[in-house]
Amino acid sequence: MHELRKDILLGRWIEVLSESKEPSEYHLHIGKGSAERSCILCSGRENETPREITSVRKPGTLPNTPGWWVRAIPSFNPLFRVEGDLNRRGVGIYDRMNNIGANEVLIESPEHNVRPEDMGLEQMIRVIRLYRDRIVDLNKDLRLRYILISKNSILDPWDTFFHPVSFLVAIPVIPKKIKDELENAKQYYDYKERCIFCDIIREELRVGERIILETRNFLCFCPYASTFPFESWIIPKRHSCDFQEISDEEIEDMGFILMNVLKKMRTIFKKEFKTELPFSYFLHTAPNRVPRRNHWHTLGDDYHWHLEIVPRLIRRNGFELGSGLFILTTSPEKAAKYLREVG
Amino acid sequence: MHELRKDILLGRWIEVLSESKEPSEYHLHIGKGSAERSCILCSGRENETPREITSVRKPGTLPNTPGWWVRAIPSFNPLFRVEGDLNRRGVGIYDRMNNIGANEVLIESPEHNVRPEDMGLEQMIRVIRLYRDRIVDLNKDLRLRYILISKNSILDPWDTFFHPVSFLVAIPVIPKKIKDELENAKQYYDYKERCIFCDIIREELRVGERIILETRNFLCFCPYASTFPFESWIIPKRHSCDFQEISDEEIEDMGFILMNVLKKMRTIFKKEFKTELPFSYFLHTAPNRVPRRNHWHTLGDDYHWHLEIVPRLIRRNGFELGSGLFILTTSPEKAAKYLREVG
Repeated sequence: MHELRKDILLGRWIEVLSESKEPSEYHLHIGKGSAERSCILCSGRENETPREITSVRKPGTLPNTPGWWVRAIPSFNPLFRVEGDLNRRGVGIYDRMNNIGANEVLIESPEHNVRPEDMGLEQMIRVIRLYRDRIVDLNKDLRLRYILISKNSILDPWDTFFHPVSFLVAIPVIPKKIKDELENAKQYYDYKERCIFCDIIREELRVGERIILETRNFLCFCPYASTFPFESWIIPKRHSCDFQEISDEEIEDMGFILMNVLKKMRTIFKKEFKTELPFSYFLHTAPNRVPRRNHWHTLGDDYHWHLEIVPRLIRRNGFELGSGLFILTTSPEKAAKYLREVG
Repeated sequence: MHELRKDILLGRWIEVLSESKEPSEYHLHIGKGSAERSCILCSGRENETPREITSVRKPGTLPNTPGWWVRAIPSFNPLFRVEGDLNRRGVGIYDRMNNIGANEVLIESPEHNVRPEDMGLEQMIRVIRLYRDRIVDLNKDLRLRYILISKNSILDPWDTFFHPVSFLVAIPVIPKKIKDELENAKQYYDYKERCIFCDIIREELRVGERIILETRNFLCFCPYASTFPFESWIIPKRHSCDFQEISDEEIEDMGFILMNVLKKMRTIFKKEFKTELPFSYFLHTAPNRVPRRNHWHTLGDDYHWHLEIVPRLIRRNGFELGSGLFILTTSPEKAAKYLREVG
């Protein structure tokens, strides 16, 4: 029998089908990677990109020259721009504002054809540190309400770049999905006086069947009401609302767990997706708590940062689009079992 | 300059890009239709489908035999089932319930290779009447909270059927997207004592630039904060929260406007999508108001039914998935202009 499950964080129901699809039953057209020679994100072509915002590089090398390990540059076609003011106003009965914000490309490696899970732990740690440093820096801008870091795997057909990159988008509003998470977490906290995410961690550890990996500082599991098959979350065991508070020890641990779960995903879908599994991930952290006008209280007891990884295996039908009630074709328990047991 | 716009119905922001893509700039892989001979939804193979729930047919013909114009049958692989009870309960800290509901295939024509916009007005009217009659019938079941009718165009690559059909799903919860619409519409009504949709109709008529078509009873327009390029809504000018209250005259008018806007969409994308434009549409109507426990008040002053049509031209990236802030690559004003001006 199919089952309806409530996503207690987004406040919506999803349906888990009783007969879970196996990895081999998913198929999706994947594009081809772009040739290395046409890639200006590779080392040696620094003068062809916008000037770097920051980089981590070999001692003695200069900005905008080779020698870097990771590098942040402004986006080529930014969705948001730093200059100007919000000019939030009504237009008839509607509302609009200017696209104030920031838009950066975080280049994860000087090499063109490296997958994140093959970069090595040291490089993965540099990438996660870059995430943290860019968030710390941008949170100083009081106009920015939210910073979202996301990644699409390099062979994702609807991706712009094929060089391994993440995207940072800083925006003047709290986007809906985050708002829903914040509001539901706050409602839970108001009632229970406990963090809903901490309770989820305890529940997952108690039940065990949705856990993929556990390390000293992190848990990786398939959420009870996942909206994508094989969706996997990485969450710190220590309560912390804000990713920018991550410690160096935790970054190492997170690098290890992220690398491992991406390797596992690639392995179980190896047959179906010869080149690489298409996936996205995104970091959910607290809104910028610096501006006073932030109406989420600054203690942060009711939120808990985490990374959501979603394999891009499916497309939504009209019912799902029209209702926001998603159909989950592989149960989180089955997905976690596949991911847990693969070498 | 790009622009952030608020979707006042779903309570979220979207970004409209300043340089609108033209129809010719959209490309998406489309599957091939299934062969007619393998289709059991065609006339003459009634004994191979589940027994019909209802049909509209030539006088003197018997149920489950040829002679029908439109036909409702139970779904082959139902997501929801009528028998049993909800058994809503906690599972650890989570919530679940059984998949009680209904799942029907509404066959729109005995012919295999006919597009909705080519069916002719009379047939389109029969289809819309079937929508109404099935909703009226299912609303009698007090366990059902919401009925959603949706359609994917026949050559949609992720569709199951290629025969022209709509899907009806009746569910025991109000899905998130509807809930957001209902809650925002109620909040507006509480403050303004006016229906937000009626105000949107007035605003669109006043401004004019997002209107595609207008008839005596309906308006067809591209919403100010569309989430899909070329998204188009059909909305009755008369205030009515519940699609099942549609009059026969309105059904005729709706058939005319729906047929016309689908023709217009096909025409502007003819070059890019040789066979057919992939689209979905879904009917947003009030929740089932029969059960007493419905906590939306039964007057229905604060909701207004409408049909949303979304061409399936794009795929979401990680930022959009992670944030729920969607990027609109063609502005509603440009989209409406294309659709309005095409013959």
